Amino acid sequence: MAVANHTPVTVVGLGLMGQALAGAFLKAGHATTVWNRSSDKAAGLVGEGATLAPSLKEAIEASPLIVLCVTDYDVVRSLLDSVSGDLAGKTLVNLTSGHSEGARETAEWVLEHGAQYLDGAIMAIPPVIGTEHATLLYGGSKEAYDAHESALKALGGATHLGTDYQLASLYDVALLGIMWGVLNSFLHGAALVGTAGVDASTFAPFANNWIGAVTNFVSAYAGQIDQGDFTAHDATIDTHLATMIHLIHESKAKGISSELPEFVKAVTDRAVAAGEGKSSYAAMFEQFKNAAK
Amino acid sequence: MAVANHTPVTVVGLGLMGQALAGAFLKAGHATTVWNRSSDKAAGLVGEGATLAPSLKEAIEASPLIVLCVTDYDVVRSLLDSVSGDLAGKTLVNLTSGHSEGARETAEWVLEHGAQYLDGAIMAIPPVIGTEHATLLYGGSKEAYDAHESALKALGGATHLGTDYQLASLYDVALLGIMWGVLNSFLHGAALVGTAGVDASTFAPFANNWIGAVTNFVSAYAGQIDQGDFTAHDATIDTHLATMIHLIHESKAKGISSELPEFVKAVTDRAVAAGEGKSSYAAMFEQFKNAAK
Repeated sequence: MAVANHTPVTVVGLGLMGQALAGAFLKAGHATTVWNRSSDKAAGLVGEGATLAPSLKEAIEASPLIVLCVTDYDVVRSLLDSVSGDLAGKTLVNLTSGHSEGARETAEWVLEHGAQYLDGAIMAIPPVIGTEHATLLYGGSKEAYDAHESALKALGGATHLGTDYQLASLYDVALLGIMWGVLNSFLHGAALVGTAGVDASTFAPFANNWIGAVTNFVSAYAGQIDQGDFTAHDATIDTHLATMIHLIHESKAKGISSELPEFVKAVTDRAVAAGEGKSSYAAMFEQFKNAAK
Repeated sequence: MAVANHTPVTVVGLGLMGQALAGAFLKAGHATTVWNRSSDKAAGLVGEGATLAPSLKEAIEASPLIVLCVTDYDVVRSLLDSVSGDLAGKTLVNLTSGHSEGARETAEWVLEHGAQYLDGAIMAIPPVIGTEHATLLYGGSKEAYDAHESALKALGGATHLGTDYQLASLYDVALLGIMWGVLNSFLHGAALVGTAGVDASTFAPFANNWIGAVTNFVSAYAGQIDQGDFTAHDATIDTHLATMIHLIHESKAKGISSELPEFVKAVTDRAVAAGEGKSSYAAMFEQFKNAAK
C-alpha cells in the first residue's frame, strides 16, 4: 500500500469546482495554497486552513504541484504566461475543461518552460469531489502522474489514461455524449410508458436495471469493433431496424414525439444500405465514425 | 419460500425463442407440451422430454397454462380463432412481440372466450432464457400472474408491471430505445477516442463505469419529472448545451461524424428556446414527449 503523500499543493482558480478541489486537498492533510483573481472566493478555504497567496507568482512558488481549474484554456495560458519564469521543476495539473488541441498546445508550452504537465478531466460535480463518487481522468506525463498519484487521489478516483495530453479531454466529451445518450432515451421511454399512466420513478428502476444489462453489449461490441468482426451473435441490424419501426409506430400511436427513434432509424437505414443488415449492431460503429456525405 | 409449482405448460410456437422457453420449462420440471405449425422444430425438445401435441387443439387441452411465442399478433389471433371453443378456464401468456393496441385487442378477445390473459415481453436473447440474465415483464391479470408466477420464473426474472395489458409492449420498446441510446452514444464516443489510438475495448470499461454513474441521474431526474420541478441541482441545460457544442467541435476537429451530437444539440436548442436554459436536464423530458411542430 502507498504511504500517504502530503505534497504541498497549490490550487489556482476558485470557482465552485476549484473550491471543492482545494477543500479535498485540505481534508486529506495537504498544505494547500490557493489563488484566485478575486480573492474573496478564498475566504471559506482560508477558514479551513488554506493559505491565500498574495500573488499568482507566490502561489506557484509555494508548492511543487499546481492544480489549475479556471474558465478556459485562454485563461490558463494568460495566467501561465504571467509566471512563465517560475514554472521550472513544477508539475502542472490542468483540470480546466477544454478542447483536445488546447490540451496539446498547453502541454507543449509548459514543457518548453521546464515543467511537467498533466491534463485532466473531472467526471463529477463539485459536491462529490474528494469521495469515491468522483472520477478524474488524466493524460500526460506518466512520471508526473506516478509522483503525484497519491495526492491526486485526494480528489477522488484517479486514472492515468496514457501519455497523450489530449486523452482526458477526448474521454471527457465522449463520456458526456454517452450521458446524453442514456438520458435522452430514458426521457423518451419515460414519456412513452407515461402514456399508460406509469410514473417516471416507477419506470426508472427498470430502465437502470436494463442499462446494466446493456453494458454487457457495450463490452461485447467493443471487442467486435477492435477485431473488425461484426458477426451477429445476438440480433442482426435488420432485426433492430424492425423493432425501431415498432418504437416509432408506438410513439406516434400514443401521441408522443417519434423524433428520437426516427433519428436512430435513419442512421440504421444507412447501415443496412451499406450492406450491414445481417451484421451485429457493432457494425453501426462505421455510421457514427464516418462523417456523413 | 414458494413451493415449486409444476403446473403443466404448453408452449405454442417453436422458433428459437419458443424452443428456449419450452426448454426452460422442461428443465424446471414442468410437464411440457409443445406445438408448432411445422412439427419438425419440436424434435430436440421431444428428445428432452416434451410432448408434441398432434394438433393445436390437443396442445391447448393438455395444460392450464399456455405460452404463445409466434411471429406476430396476427398469427396469435388466427391460431386462437381456430381453438376458440377450447380456451375457457385457461391462462394464456402471450410472449409474442407486438404493438400495445394488439395486446389490448387480444386481451379483450381472450377474456370474451373465458380465459385469463397476460401479455409479456422478453428482455433477453434465447440463450439466456431460464437464467437470472433473462428479464420477462408481464401486464394483465394479477390473479393469473400470481397463480402462475412460480412457473413463469422458470423462464427468468419475472415482474408483473400492472393490470394494463399494454404495459409489457410499451416497456419493451421503451427499454429497447434506451439500449440504442446507450449503444449509439458509446459507438460515437469510441470513434472519438479512437482518433487518439484508443481501442474500443480500452474505452468500454470507462464508458460502463460512467454509465453506472449516469443511472443515478436517471433516478434523480425521474423524481423531478414526476414532481414537475426542474430546479437545477447539478448542471443547467445551458451548461449542457455549451458542452454539446464542445463535443461537436471535437468530433469535427478529429474528422469523425458530428451527426449524433448535432441531433442532441438541436433538441437542446429547442429546450433553451422554450425558456428551460436554467432548468435541470430533466426538463428535456418535454422535448422528447411532445411531438414536434
